[in-house]
Amino acid sequence: MKRPGLGGGAEFDLIRSFLGDAADDFPATRFAQVGPGDDCAILRGGIALSVDMSMEGVHFLREWLEPEEIGYRAAAAALSDLAAVAAEPIGVLAALAAREDDTDTAVRVMAGVRALVGSLSATLLGGDFTRSAGPLVIDVVAVGAVTRPVLRSGAVPGDGIWVTGSLGGAAAAVQEWRAGRVPEPSARDAFARPRPRTAEAAWLAHRGVARALIDLSDGLAGDIGHVAAASRVGVIIDAVTVPVHAAARGIAPDDRAALRLALAGGEDYELCMSAPAGAVEALAADFAEQFGVRLTRVGEVVEGSGVRLRDANGDVGDMPFSGHDHLRGSG
Amino acid sequence: MKRPGLGGGAEFDLIRSFLGDAADDFPATRFAQVGPGDDCAILRGGIALSVDMSMEGVHFLREWLEPEEIGYRAAAAALSDLAAVAAEPIGVLAALAAREDDTDTAVRVMAGVRALVGSLSATLLGGDFTRSAGPLVIDVVAVGAVTRPVLRSGAVPGDGIWVTGSLGGAAAAVQEWRAGRVPEPSARDAFARPRPRTAEAAWLAHRGVARALIDLSDGLAGDIGHVAAASRVGVIIDAVTVPVHAAARGIAPDDRAALRLALAGGEDYELCMSAPAGAVEALAADFAEQFGVRLTRVGEVVEGSGVRLRDANGDVGDMPFSGHDHLRGSG
Repeated sequence: MKRPGLGGGAEFDLIRSFLGDAADDFPATRFAQVGPGDDCAILRGGIALSVDMSMEGVHFLREWLEPEEIGYRAAAAALSDLAAVAAEPIGVLAALAAREDDTDTAVRVMAGVRALVGSLSATLLGGDFTRSAGPLVIDVVAVGAVTRPVLRSGAVPGDGIWVTGSLGGAAAAVQEWRAGRVPEPSARDAFARPRPRTAEAAWLAHRGVARALIDLSDGLAGDIGHVAAASRVGVIIDAVTVPVHAAARGIAPDDRAALRLALAGGEDYELCMSAPAGAVEALAADFAEQFGVRLTRVGEVVEGSGVRLRDANGDVGDMPFSGHDHLRGSG
Repeated sequence: MKRPGLGGGAEFDLIRSFLGDAADDFPATRFAQVGPGDDCAILRGGIALSVDMSMEGVHFLREWLEPEEIGYRAAAAALSDLAAVAAEPIGVLAALAAREDDTDTAVRVMAGVRALVGSLSATLLGGDFTRSAGPLVIDVVAVGAVTRPVLRSGAVPGDGIWVTGSLGGAAAAVQEWRAGRVPEPSARDAFARPRPRTAEAAWLAHRGVARALIDLSDGLAGDIGHVAAASRVGVIIDAVTVPVHAAARGIAPDDRAALRLALAGGEDYELCMSAPAGAVEALAADFAEQFGVRLTRVGEVVEGSGVRLRDANGDVGDMPFSGHDHLRGSG
């Protein structure tokens, strides 16, 4: 789900061209209140919708994952878009393409979808099955309900930027697999079984602390750029505060390489929010107790535009990491 | 969207296994009123949702279609599922996978999606873009609104079975392409630019004549089996009444081959409904005048189960055509 408030880069120029006029001027309709450009489309009445495609060879390799994990992960990625607007999960529709001689895999992939969906008390609402001419493809439509969505566009100078959990674990797993090694269990799990932060997002939204919200699918360095663009503000990320996943630290040759995994590795499916100064500090302990997940302040919103990085010496420069540099190429 | 009321065949057994428990006992939730098994999932509040995947090499070949037509057709197939429950189109989400060196095609495919959606006064609500590891894949989520959905399960013995338009045109185009020939324009158009019958379905539903409704994506022979199964009735199709597309007649060596294209060719995206005796006859002229499309009575609902065919001699036997026998293998 993309639109005018997109960050820079050729990929997002492409998405703008997909949208045609809708990129510049999404027509308010009697049915839709939020169109392309946030993590979900939101219909009047508060139904939130997002679609997420996962393709073998692009988003995952079969050698890495069990079929159930392929489905679980695809569904988690789609439902993470609901978390990104603070919507409650209703269910999913899943479209699957698999080779005709591979229906056992297809059945196991769908079992993984059902497992993730069931764990969130949501429902498999329907789907589509197709013979594939090649790769396994799974497309998951996330359907949620939201009364007061938190969009990308609400960040205000002076806000703090916060993230849930730790970053770079999934990217660490991918890097290990690519090097022919077996990732450590916590990294593998971060990639194979990400947990959509829907309950966490609802909790934060209910307390009114999140002014802007997004989920981290492409990496903080790129994703926070969408918040900056949609909110017409700048963002400074503090390198030393980024909660780098222990597995990313473990495999990285130095701090900068670890930071790259955390900021540009992608696939974290953690939440990132902008919140007024002081608002989150008062709730962070309750949040950690409730969810077993920490909230970390990783930067601040400033006047201007774009995303910059403050290094360990306090010097602020251009964000050196962009987009994300591994398997996944999705927007 | 499939479920308990599915017709027979290995493909539908597979879909049942995808659904797990939901296949037998879709849990009524506080959000969903219709789950897997009809043409759309329908949320409480009347939002209808369906997802439809189109893959290069399975649903189309690039040699056959312009990129805009690939997008137009994919969106039409998805929106046809809205027609199948008499829902009004709100918009679509589209997920596209294309090779990195082929973004021009991707942009043109999306222009086709926008053209179809715009022609129905609907909106492109959002989407996802991914690099493809191989084939072009487009997945379209249709979003509609419906107050009183017409499902597959309402057919009653004594009803007539009616279809809109003519059948077999798209299949005739595919057969010509496969034989290395150029299909005639009306056949090519039936395949490349099907028109979802959303307005026609709303008109019929508004007048209360449709007891059961489905769209014809896999061919009448197979699709009407889903109505029979969901309604726990039998159906007899009258061979001589089937409105075979002129292009199908034109290329078929005999009447039986033409009938096969019309009943098992698929991709027609016409409506098929069950209606009380006499109800449609009174409206058919108005309908034809309003939409420039005829309604044809092609059979009847009887006690029992399954689908049979009445031949030109009046003899009733097993339906000799099943599923559908060309490019598309989707459910």
